[in-house]
Amino acid sequence: MIGARDVGWNGCGRPTRFPPFVEARLLISCPDRHGIVAAVSGFLAARDANIVSSDQYSTDPEGGAFFMRMAFTIDAIGEEFAGAFAEEVAGRFAMEWRLDDAGRAKRVAVLVSREDHCLLDLLWRRRRGELHCDIPLVISNHPDHATDVENFGTRYEHVPVVKGEKPAAEARMVELLGADGGFDLVVLARYMQILSGEFLARVGCPVINIHHSFLPAFAGADPYRRAHERGVKIIGATAHYVTEELDAGPIIEQDVRHVTHREGVETLVSIGRDVERTVLARAVGLHLEDRVLVHENRTVVF
Amino acid sequence: MIGARDVGWNGCGRPTRFPPFVEARLLISCPDRHGIVAAVSGFLAARDANIVSSDQYSTDPEGGAFFMRMAFTIDAIGEEFAGAFAEEVAGRFAMEWRLDDAGRAKRVAVLVSREDHCLLDLLWRRRRGELHCDIPLVISNHPDHATDVENFGTRYEHVPVVKGEKPAAEARMVELLGADGGFDLVVLARYMQILSGEFLARVGCPVINIHHSFLPAFAGADPYRRAHERGVKIIGATAHYVTEELDAGPIIEQDVRHVTHREGVETLVSIGRDVERTVLARAVGLHLEDRVLVHENRTVVF
Amino acid sequence: MIGARDVGWNGCGRPTRFPPFVEARLLISCPDRHGIVAAVSGFLAARDANIVSSDQYSTDPEGGAFFMRMAFTIDAIGEEFAGAFAEEVAGRFAMEWRLDDAGRAKRVAVLVSREDHCLLDLLWRRRRGELHCDIPLVISNHPDHATDVENFGTRYEHVPVVKGEKPAAEARMVELLGADGGFDLVVLARYMQILSGEFLARVGCPVINIHHSFLPAFAGADPYRRAHERGVKIIGATAHYVTEELDAGPIIEQDVRHVTHREGVETLVSIGRDVERTVLARAVGLHLEDRVLVHENRTVVF
Amino acid sequence: MIGARDVGWNGCGRPTRFPPFVEARLLISCPDRHGIVAAVSGFLAARDANIVSSDQYSTDPEGGAFFMRMAFTIDAIGEEFAGAFAEEVAGRFAMEWRLDDAGRAKRVAVLVSREDHCLLDLLWRRRRGELHCDIPLVISNHPDHATDVENFGTRYEHVPVVKGEKPAAEARMVELLGADGGFDLVVLARYMQILSGEFLARVGCPVINIHHSFLPAFAGADPYRRAHERGVKIIGATAHYVTEELDAGPIIEQDVRHVTHREGVETLVSIGRDVERTVLARAVGLHLEDRVLVHENRTVVF
Repeated sequence: MIGARDVGWNGCGRPTRFPPFVEARLLISCPDRHGIVAAVSGFLAARDANIVSSDQYSTDPEGGAFFMRMAFTIDAIGEEFAGAFAEEVAGRFAMEWRLDDAGRAKRVAVLVSREDHCLLDLLWRRRRGELHCDIPLVISNHPDHATDVENFGTRYEHVPVVKGEKPAAEARMVELLGADGGFDLVVLARYMQILSGEFLARVGCPVINIHHSFLPAFAGADPYRRAHERGVKIIGATAHYVTEELDAGPIIEQDVRHVTHREGVETLVSIGRDVERTVLARAVGLHLEDRVLVHENRTVVF
Repeated sequence: MIGARDVGWNGCGRPTRFPPFVEARLLISCPDRHGIVAAVSGFLAARDANIVSSDQYSTDPEGGAFFMRMAFTIDAIGEEFAGAFAEEVAGRFAMEWRLDDAGRAKRVAVLVSREDHCLLDLLWRRRRGELHCDIPLVISNHPDHATDVENFGTRYEHVPVVKGEKPAAEARMVELLGADGGFDLVVLARYMQILSGEFLARVGCPVINIHHSFLPAFAGADPYRRAHERGVKIIGATAHYVTEELDAGPIIEQDVRHVTHREGVETLVSIGRDVERTVLARAVGLHLEDRVLVHENRTVVF
Repeated sequence: MIGARDVGWNGCGRPTRFPPFVEARLLISCPDRHGIVAAVSGFLAARDANIVSSDQYSTDPEGGAFFMRMAFTIDAIGEEFAGAFAEEVAGRFAMEWRLDDAGRAKRVAVLVSREDHCLLDLLWRRRRGELHCDIPLVISNHPDHATDVENFGTRYEHVPVVKGEKPAAEARMVELLGADGGFDLVVLARYMQILSGEFLARVGCPVINIHHSFLPAFAGADPYRRAHERGVKIIGATAHYVTEELDAGPIIEQDVRHVTHREGVETLVSIGRDVERTVLARAVGLHLEDRVLVHENRTVVF
Repeated sequence: MIGARDVGWNGCGRPTRFPPFVEARLLISCPDRHGIVAAVSGFLAARDANIVSSDQYSTDPEGGAFFMRMAFTIDAIGEEFAGAFAEEVAGRFAMEWRLDDAGRAKRVAVLVSREDHCLLDLLWRRRRGELHCDIPLVISNHPDHATDVENFGTRYEHVPVVKGEKPAAEARMVELLGADGGFDLVVLARYMQILSGEFLARVGCPVINIHHSFLPAFAGADPYRRAHERGVKIIGATAHYVTEELDAGPIIEQDVRHVTHREGVETLVSIGRDVERTVLARAVGLHLEDRVLVHENRTVVF
């Protein structure tokens, strides 16, 4: 979906189980033309699928880019389905497309530094069933959260980042993330190290970051201190896909809180935690439900 | 759409201009079954229509009620279109449906009492092009707003409500509302008289009211005073379709503001004005764009 | 502060440590008259205290009720302080007043049923230092949360509520809550049993509850289901002091989220969890900082 | 309060009526020390004033800057009051201070370009009594709003800004703003010309601007287009005091709305209007009630 980390386009999502599932999601991106909805829904109707929800968006009805997400239930999806769709529909409209099994729990790895609020929130929500995913691995450049994470039955790997030896640390993380068939998503839950372009290229799946400001304001380091200095009356947080350009990737979700002159930097940090963990959880949830498409550094969120 | 005031179902909307328009909206309500989207989009594709946006909702994918709004552009809609749709698609799925011309400005009448903030806000937004409609008539039980309204080129009719003679006042309003081909929508912009079921039956179009609380809390009279007495930390406003049961009709839009113990009743009233006029304008705008369907006293807002 | 559970008025708060502390809070309630601020601040200035913050509110400047919270630092508060204040200031203005040591961590007990989100949020915030308190005891009518709670170093007591034997359960809880010098606050973190007036009278401290609706709408059982049925576009949560009348106690804090027709009851429950835990944490934090006064079933929140 | 436009410090506000008024506001700024509140409230108590509300803020209890706003009622304020306060209190604590007559309506001038929503909102709120001020003058570089403004009984001056002759236009505006004893506040209600430092120096009163983004994001021109390009999920507006540095003055108030990928630039502009007018009206109201102090390019809002 985003540059080198786009996986699964023009084919079924990674480790999809065949045979049959019961609920699937079809994501489509193509030039806008007449007849797309009719072709796709006709294809599904012919296979007796029931469309549960359907969203579409066009940047411009006259010749823009067209995006669609259809969730449908079906008795069975055989090997034949993807091939037939590619041949009968996708080719005709020059579609990029992806088919996802809604029943499969995506595999998520979390990277974290000292602050634990986003990490624990994700683990809680997953255990409670609010996030449909597995979180088998947490990596941190600090040893602090081992017990908390292991209490959830999740493996905790401490990968310190020694000054001047970041490439070694990144190599170790790539190794961990590549094991057991890899991951569908990496979440930076207040991971305070900048990741190299090479790491992003090799990680093989989308990476979501939570930034502690309402981007594009206060990109970069220490946003709460700078927000306090500027005297803003609103602070916020932004969840975005990570690209090589720091804090400039496609924004998935943002939220804010009102503050006053009374809040010092420490209090802003504390208020901000609630915004960060909520915004990150919403963004991760949207991604897990295949609701986010990326187009020219902006997201389409269905 | 709502009870006796449902107009236009299973046919084109009231005074639609034939021949051709360029943008149309198709609203559909029927039992959920496989193949609906395919049938409708196939019908449109065969007429070379381009679907601009499409929204659907099902109360339950297995045997629930299905709702859809499709906006499409088309070179021309002739007399033939509606008949063909009824025969080829609507009958097969037992649809209630309505076809609306997006280019036609709907005719709106506003009823108002002493408070002018909702009234003026609607007139401003209409002049500015934010609301696509005509507002040729304002009726009030007070004479106060005549100059303000006439400055917008709108007719102002003072219909006093004398105690014990409300039926006469309502009859006069029905007469005014029935002239010149009638209206598509009546808006109660802080009209503080309770309207009879007979009036609602005779007015011949949907009626939207703005209530000055977050319903169902504080239904009935004097909600800000009662909110103050209860010590709530949030006040709100609710726009809803009017039914015979007071303040119990389908909710279209709601919003709120945070308040503290410091705000007295007068200040709540003042803060509330901003919420009321914004919520009412949003609800009216949604209705004008044919985005609101009603199902079992609840709205589906696309 | 509220009925039988008002403790500490006209005297220092419960187990205050003498001698010296460095930061104190003085809470005052009395009939509004000229000279109150001057008398209190003059008393503090004479003892070389530095007023850190000061808030006041009067229901009516002419003869209403007056409320004040002053936070101040001082080298030492000896036994003499309270007596002198009572004699020199409080008596003259017919004050109810309370002096609290800001440095002392209040003792909080949490009651909980099946849903763990509010409970875990409170424990986590306390560990992180966002809530200045001790939480030595959690009581539940379910055994489920024992491990989670004990991981925070907190004692977990399972007190089942057997049908027809609620008085025995309440007696056991009163016993637990009375041990070790008692508690400053009991928090009902989604405790789904109705507590008797006798329990409230015997518990000896304020009780805060989180209700999962924006009261007064949907008081009582199953608010999310009823909100869904009514078709509201906003759901919320309310933290309030518990009184004998169910869901009618003084409201401390409320917040809401926007929802649409698409959210089923289960999704409302899930969205609601975020509102509930945030609202409850804010209310508990305000109480712990002695920012909440109660007057005629309404709160003054400084 | 802000640089060259600080008026009224260390003395009574400009055209104050002597003798007696009944409600006054005292604004104080000085280094934080023990005894300030006692000295001020003692001074007022000795004159039998009743403190209606009191707010204070200190950047740091140990040696920071101290700010206070006290509203009080008093039978009469004679010439003696200010002199006595200066001698007995202000000098001792090295205070900057200002005394304002709450009963006097401040004189406000509005500058506007093509967009009328902020202008009309201010005029309407003033007529309705929500803003306690007079608005005798509106200046615009466009002739469009003459009738609307004159309908409110306000003088409308068209001062075109010809390319290369801006100094002449500014001189004409300074002349208009200096007549009739001058103004207490100038409001830029979507005035799209950059004002020179010389104009700001000569205008002789604070200037409030509404910027159509949540500053510091999207300072400068065309913020909605740039917000759309960046793909933000939130847009906002910022009311701030104008300084020579464009869009960098002290922020008084901000608010935001959530948006999605579906909103094009035109729709963002339309949604933004509601935020802009609300934020500007709140900021103007706070200023009119003497609730805003400025300290090191940040505001203290009581």
